Amino acid sequence: MTLPRDYRGQSCSLARAMEIVGERWTLLILRDAFYGVRRFGEFAAHLSVPRAVLADRLAGLVTAGVLDRRQEPGAGRREVYVLTEKGHGLWPAVRALTDWGEAHYPAPGGGARRIFLHHADGAPAGPDGRCSGCGTTVPPGDLLVAPGPGLAPPGDDADPVTAALARPHRLLTPLLPTRGTP
Amino acid sequence: MTLPRDYRGQSCSLARAMEIVGERWTLLILRDAFYGVRRFGEFAAHLSVPRAVLADRLAGLVTAGVLDRRQEPGAGRREVYVLTEKGHGLWPAVRALTDWGEAHYPAPGGGARRIFLHHADGAPAGPDGRCSGCGTTVPPGDLLVAPGPGLAPPGDDADPVTAALARPHRLLTPLLPTRGTP
Repeated sequence: MTLPRDYRGQSCSLARAMEIVGERWTLLILRDAFYGVRRFGEFAAHLSVPRAVLADRLAGLVTAGVLDRRQEPGAGRREVYVLTEKGHGLWPAVRALTDWGEAHYPAPGGGARRIFLHHADGAPAGPDGRCSGCGTTVPPGDLLVAPGPGLAPPGDDADPVTAALARPHRLLTPLLPTRGTP
Repeated sequence: MTLPRDYRGQSCSLARAMEIVGERWTLLILRDAFYGVRRFGEFAAHLSVPRAVLADRLAGLVTAGVLDRRQEPGAGRREVYVLTEKGHGLWPAVRALTDWGEAHYPAPGGGARRIFLHHADGAPAGPDGRCSGCGTTVPPGDLLVAPGPGLAPPGDDADPVTAALARPHRLLTPLLPTRGTP
């Protein structure tokens, strides 16, 4: 018995991965989640993504087990989206695509827009995920994302996520403060 | 003067990268190109992608400078699509997404469907691109893609690409023989 072609196609691991993350908004949502964005409105304002599209993509990532939707502590019924362990595993892909974009679509004045530093010693982590200082492979939760020389300063009308990312921030920690119940 | 929001959004390197590769079919086309698939009909048969979609995605990758469209030597007017240097730079992203898919959507019997070996010494290359034998970072053109224990044998009706990938093959070299002009 031979497998039908569509089954064989789906058996490819990249094809399975792309069923979940193979779409522009999805990877940008994941990048923001690594940067510590957690609330629906923050994703929406930072990405300028239509809210219906954002709701659909977030729901898909929750169903796939990449994001976990949970109550925000101390904020009543407000919900946040947090990367799961499975989601953490997508960091090398986000990093690889980010590096490729920096290499081939550089900022007008040159220089990386964002750099990634090992939290423990402040040394840059290379494209392969290794710290240039201590040589260890740095998991995403031990990285800082920091503005690079190519990052334009945020404008006065910048959304809160853009403004917060103008300063170094540890990945996988909340980017914006928890708001109390109104 | 502040930058308009849509410009700031586009200035993100991942966003720029996703404009080009942020779509399921595009990354599967790129994976096939790394595996040595070069002709329109081979992509179409292997991916079961609608021909109009395939034509659109190939044209986009050529416009972006990721693929080069050229005459196939010794085959009259037949054209092939070949990764450029810029395209080669996407290998870490394809590898990272493939590894994530293998980790979270394993083959029914377990084991990786495809493994990547350093051509020079036959040792596996790890997720960070380093050879587990000699420790060097292996560029994609020096890798072999080989069937792993999780790969189902190709059926008798397998398309030529699927059949050819049942044997080890060096990345970035033509997977199927050049056909003469009919």
